Amino acid sequence: MTERKNITIMGAGLVGSLLSLYLAKRGHKVDLYERRPDMRKTLLDGGRSINLALSDRGFRALRGIGIEEEVRQVAIPMHGRIMHDEEGRLTFQPYGKEGQFIYSVSRAGLNAALMDISEPNPDITYHFNRQLLDLDLHQNKATLRNHETGETESLEAELLFGADGAFSMVRNAMQKTERYNYSQSYLEYGYKELTIPAAEDGSWQLEKNALHIWPRGNYMMIALPNLDGSFTCTLFFPYEGPLSFENIKTDDDLLAFFLQAFPDVVALMPDLAQEYFSNPVGTLVTVKCFPWSYKDKALLIGDACHAVVPFYGQGMNAGFEDITVLDQMLENFDGDWEKLFHAFERRRKPDADAIADLAVLNFIEMRDKVADPRFLLRKKIESKINQQYPDKWIPLYSMVTFTDLPYSYALETGRLQDEIMQKVMKHIHSVEDYEKPEVQKLLEKQLIQKERLKGYQGQRV
Amino acid sequence: MTERKNITIMGAGLVGSLLSLYLAKRGHKVDLYERRPDMRKTLLDGGRSINLALSDRGFRALRGIGIEEEVRQVAIPMHGRIMHDEEGRLTFQPYGKEGQFIYSVSRAGLNAALMDISEPNPDITYHFNRQLLDLDLHQNKATLRNHETGETESLEAELLFGADGAFSMVRNAMQKTERYNYSQSYLEYGYKELTIPAAEDGSWQLEKNALHIWPRGNYMMIALPNLDGSFTCTLFFPYEGPLSFENIKTDDDLLAFFLQAFPDVVALMPDLAQEYFSNPVGTLVTVKCFPWSYKDKALLIGDACHAVVPFYGQGMNAGFEDITVLDQMLENFDGDWEKLFHAFERRRKPDADAIADLAVLNFIEMRDKVADPRFLLRKKIESKINQQYPDKWIPLYSMVTFTDLPYSYALETGRLQDEIMQKVMKHIHSVEDYEKPEVQKLLEKQLIQKERLKGYQGQRV
Repeated sequence: MTERKNITIMGAGLVGSLLSLYLAKRGHKVDLYERRPDMRKTLLDGGRSINLALSDRGFRALRGIGIEEEVRQVAIPMHGRIMHDEEGRLTFQPYGKEGQFIYSVSRAGLNAALMDISEPNPDITYHFNRQLLDLDLHQNKATLRNHETGETESLEAELLFGADGAFSMVRNAMQKTERYNYSQSYLEYGYKELTIPAAEDGSWQLEKNALHIWPRGNYMMIALPNLDGSFTCTLFFPYEGPLSFENIKTDDDLLAFFLQAFPDVVALMPDLAQEYFSNPVGTLVTVKCFPWSYKDKALLIGDACHAVVPFYGQGMNAGFEDITVLDQMLENFDGDWEKLFHAFERRRKPDADAIADLAVLNFIEMRDKVADPRFLLRKKIESKINQQYPDKWIPLYSMVTFTDLPYSYALETGRLQDEIMQKVMKHIHSVEDYEKPEVQKLLEKQLIQKERLKGYQGQRV
Repeated sequence: MTERKNITIMGAGLVGSLLSLYLAKRGHKVDLYERRPDMRKTLLDGGRSINLALSDRGFRALRGIGIEEEVRQVAIPMHGRIMHDEEGRLTFQPYGKEGQFIYSVSRAGLNAALMDISEPNPDITYHFNRQLLDLDLHQNKATLRNHETGETESLEAELLFGADGAFSMVRNAMQKTERYNYSQSYLEYGYKELTIPAAEDGSWQLEKNALHIWPRGNYMMIALPNLDGSFTCTLFFPYEGPLSFENIKTDDDLLAFFLQAFPDVVALMPDLAQEYFSNPVGTLVTVKCFPWSYKDKALLIGDACHAVVPFYGQGMNAGFEDITVLDQMLENFDGDWEKLFHAFERRRKPDADAIADLAVLNFIEMRDKVADPRFLLRKKIESKINQQYPDKWIPLYSMVTFTDLPYSYALETGRLQDEIMQKVMKHIHSVEDYEKPEVQKLLEKQLIQKERLKGYQGQRV
């Protein structure tokens, strides 16, 4: 048992709230400081519920504190993607094997649930309406604005975790230290959230158990189901150019565009114009940085050290996996926090970089490739390979979504498999071609080579 | 002739001073603001002269204002690298063909010369001791500290150029605008400057017309000649680890290390310990950002938008080439500064990224590969290919250093050539092997393929 610490967590979002439970379980006293008011009280007056994709890595972290099933009860399984073409025709593509789903969960609902579970713990205290203004890392002295009193408060943290998201102020303080590696990179796309409300009888107006995509090459819309029968749609759209946020200025522009691009759902979006012109355009940023820690004083976690774009549905899952990894390390902890922080950031950085890159790549797949029959045929062939060689071949999407293999391993292996698929697909014109002897022979040969390469890579790890 | 503008340049370093001449030549009025005092006055009281590598791209920009030959007079040609091994044995590797040199120039001397040439121009005014504290880009309103009076001044710039270096305050203001792409990335190496003074008779104690390298795998020292007979040495050394800045703490540590690593020059460095322990450790940063401009108000140039590590000797040259490119664009300028800035940053960004990446890669070559006989053999073979096929093959180093081919083209072509060299070198064990029929045949075939690939790439540009 290591010394009990007074731990400060900046940010009571998903990662901060879950982390508090893990740290309290290890015997520490935890104080969380959150800029916003208590969302459980403000939820009531009707913030629109935004949803996120929760998958195996996320569930694993929830399992660790025994709330996996509880969350699964209020999550909606999505069995695959349903693609909507310009004529409103649908194509279904399963995410994984039979029984492998990802889940749509309400961000606010999950966050509130984590707060409800942690707040009764006598070792966990939430402080809302506290905005971090300044952090002196040398003394771990934080200056906060108390938005209830309007006063400035200060505190000295014994140990500080920065779980304060993509625009982290804790990271901001680290950025001012010497030789800090930092990058922020924006896509030339923004996003806007829109709603397909529930039908009058409360039912879902599109297939409930799927993630819907309207892939349009240069842009796309997606929709995820909510528990209340509605869907939250997200339009990913260029900032500038012929078809872009910049060029949709009037209700007429908007309607003409939606009728052309998303004709099958316009009728399902009664508040389209009102929502479109009042909701903000969100930015899509990737943040990478290193190190993630400052001496034995502070550690970043989640989006604060690896904000990713949302196209792999892994943002929250990666943040939760940080907690799983940290907790494993705490299992054999010798009391040296600086050593722990260094080991954690070194272990986790390659995986954070990998999921950041995978997420950007998946945007191209989602908005463009999923509309291509060749791409869908390829996905079917990959699934057949996976069935035939379950130990030797897991499709990239499945490695990321349904396993706990390191993201960096998934990225590398995905590249090898991509090379093989390019060779194999030259011989494939229909699903049946998979059984052709030359395909089987080629695949066998390629798999042997791949195993050899993987063995070689294994040595490098 | 476009409208005469009042132009403000932040930073009167090499790029700012040269830029002022080009802009004045185009009919504009230029004011330069520089944080430091006038270096021509402070030079007198003995700052050590640091030298830089000046090569074709830099000379081209100097030629544009007619001072190429003037600068060449006070620059020292370096014909190649002289490698010093642990036993003090020397190996020479020429930089290019007969007559192709790079030049060692004094940074302060060149900067002072540019000031001397520009200051008499009635359209150019220097303001020293003015530190930019804050910049409101919307109004182009700058707040400066006047270090002579201690007062704060403010000015509104009609048009602003940020030539204020790697830690640019103008860029800092741009970083606060929406969706700004930015990265700073440090090597885990620092550098320290040391001196080999002139001999008593004023002569150089090492071969004057060369860049000296002590490549030691994980670290290295280099030395460039100065006009006064001295050499400025730079030790590139890890911050941490068994052999590192961290672990050299005493005069004894230092001497033991230098005697083992650089035995042939210890006797030439009488002030080694004094210099080592009083000179600061410099950091090695790569800065990338985008965009480089803000509306029609401000444009970054030089290190301010593309700081690179020094290992390709191209930092100043790339900044000077910015000016050449900008001046070409001003030739056909229609008066729309915003359009000009956008065209400039789009044209120049891929080349800035390329030289940044090349510079990092060249560190590995310099500290490690140049000590490898296979590497030197390969350089000789490449030079033979270049002689035989002067139109089809220019070694990467020569493209970067002795041509005005875009850096991005050089990087890409260098990669293709690298693949070919790997194949060719399998058949080469001595320079004579180059004439072997199978080598000649292989090379011919590879060159045809390369031309085809280059044609294809050409289409993409």
